[in-house]
Amino acid sequence: MTTEFTTHLTEAVVDSIEGTSDPRLRELLAALTRHLHAFVRETEPTMAEWERAVGFLTATGQTCTDTRQEFVLLSDVLGVSMLVETVNSDGREGVTESTVLGPFHMTESPARELGANIDLVGGGEPCVVSGRVLARDGSPLPGAVLDVWQANAEGYYDVQQPDVQPPGNGRGLFTADSEGRFRFRTCVPSPYPIPTDGPVGDLLRAMGRHPYRPAHIHFIASADGHTPVTTHIFVAGSEYLDSDAVFAVKESLVQDFTETDDPSLAREFGIPNPFRHARFDLVLNPVRS
Amino acid sequence: MTTEFTTHLTEAVVDSIEGTSDPRLRELLAALTRHLHAFVRETEPTMAEWERAVGFLTATGQTCTDTRQEFVLLSDVLGVSMLVETVNSDGREGVTESTVLGPFHMTESPARELGANIDLVGGGEPCVVSGRVLARDGSPLPGAVLDVWQANAEGYYDVQQPDVQPPGNGRGLFTADSEGRFRFRTCVPSPYPIPTDGPVGDLLRAMGRHPYRPAHIHFIASADGHTPVTTHIFVAGSEYLDSDAVFAVKESLVQDFTETDDPSLAREFGIPNPFRHARFDLVLNPVRS
Repeated sequence: MTTEFTTHLTEAVVDSIEGTSDPRLRELLAALTRHLHAFVRETEPTMAEWERAVGFLTATGQTCTDTRQEFVLLSDVLGVSMLVETVNSDGREGVTESTVLGPFHMTESPARELGANIDLVGGGEPCVVSGRVLARDGSPLPGAVLDVWQANAEGYYDVQQPDVQPPGNGRGLFTADSEGRFRFRTCVPSPYPIPTDGPVGDLLRAMGRHPYRPAHIHFIASADGHTPVTTHIFVAGSEYLDSDAVFAVKESLVQDFTETDDPSLAREFGIPNPFRHARFDLVLNPVRS
Repeated sequence: MTTEFTTHLTEAVVDSIEGTSDPRLRELLAALTRHLHAFVRETEPTMAEWERAVGFLTATGQTCTDTRQEFVLLSDVLGVSMLVETVNSDGREGVTESTVLGPFHMTESPARELGANIDLVGGGEPCVVSGRVLARDGSPLPGAVLDVWQANAEGYYDVQQPDVQPPGNGRGLFTADSEGRFRFRTCVPSPYPIPTDGPVGDLLRAMGRHPYRPAHIHFIASADGHTPVTTHIFVAGSEYLDSDAVFAVKESLVQDFTETDDPSLAREFGIPNPFRHARFDLVLNPVRS
């Protein structure tokens, strides 16, 4: 039942926000109030439903630790993280598209030489990743920096398996050469589930959704005078490309990890021939002035 | 920047909710997604703002304990609790209006005889509260039950001061007499601040808002065959009636606590004459069939 009181109530709350000294916070809180109230007016939750929501949010906060962020996960599975990422992206034609940072960029990637192997453990399917960092006009960006991180072949990041993986496994900080080129060796990543032992896992089960992300490697590419891009490269043909639990797949980010027969390149990387090879360029925008 | 991707994203999330087996949960989650996404598209939060929001929600969850519910407080100060309460209220003319339950109905009120004193400590301004519980047609409701709770004259509930107040101070469960009448003695309640030592307190300060609630006594009135009402009676003339931190004041719930010169009533209640006296009826709706 929507009465005159409820309309008046929304305006009373928005009025009470008027005194917020930070104008941007004022704008955000007023918009949040209007949208939250519109949601309540549309759905008319019962008191029991409201209590259940309060309980869910409380449990979500209490599941967070130094190495676990359940509210990020909640934002991810409702597509909010991807939406925030996208409204902040440059979005100009011809530039590498962005996608979510995700919760595992929590430790510094160790600086490595071009061509180094970021798979410190082995056991997965070996592959080479190479390409160039370019400006939008196609000119190379020498000295561009690539921050790379990925899960191992079993789908776990180093920080999730401190007893199994050495710190920095699957991670590397690379500096592109004088022609903007980068290359490194790793193992082909696997799909993996986001953590499901908390409230967000319960929510996914209630929705009948699986928790998997398609196989991907994370990148942050940056270069002087250019806007950095935070993105993934997804492995073409990976399971879950069409149902990523966090909605982060963009067509342009799916790349072939091609079965390659190239004995000289194999020798260069110390890798058995044939091997998988992903080749792509990362394209950055000049900073807007 | 709103791209085709962001519109498609919202629909992809809503589609992913289609498999929710509980139809009401499906409806709530789909509406939540649409409203949340609309909020993000309208305000375009930066990544830093998104991180601050995640941090705020996490801190709010982690402030909750067995005796502290910071998410209820957040819902309260944004007017959401009052809105949910109101969309659930019967709202028919002539019936006592509802207001929020609040966070302090967390312990059972002790059954007391009509006329008993719920102020077990003393020290406040003594008053008598009396009236009738009626059906909407004006007929009395004998045996109606009144659950009553209030803060003491310093603005604290018993559960907030376990070292100072005995359990059940300010609380009573009364059964109306054969003519639907109720009466009890107490002290005039005071305005009090909601807790401000957590994230919601920080938010109130950022908004330049005070944390006070006007003086009130809580009631839940119930009777066979009638819809119970959860409400407050506010003390006319109390400070903050026009700026309740949780937006719970409704005109019809403000009652005079009249200075009264009535030696015989004073004797009946064992109270010094003159005294304050609040008189009002609580009117319930028959259960809809």
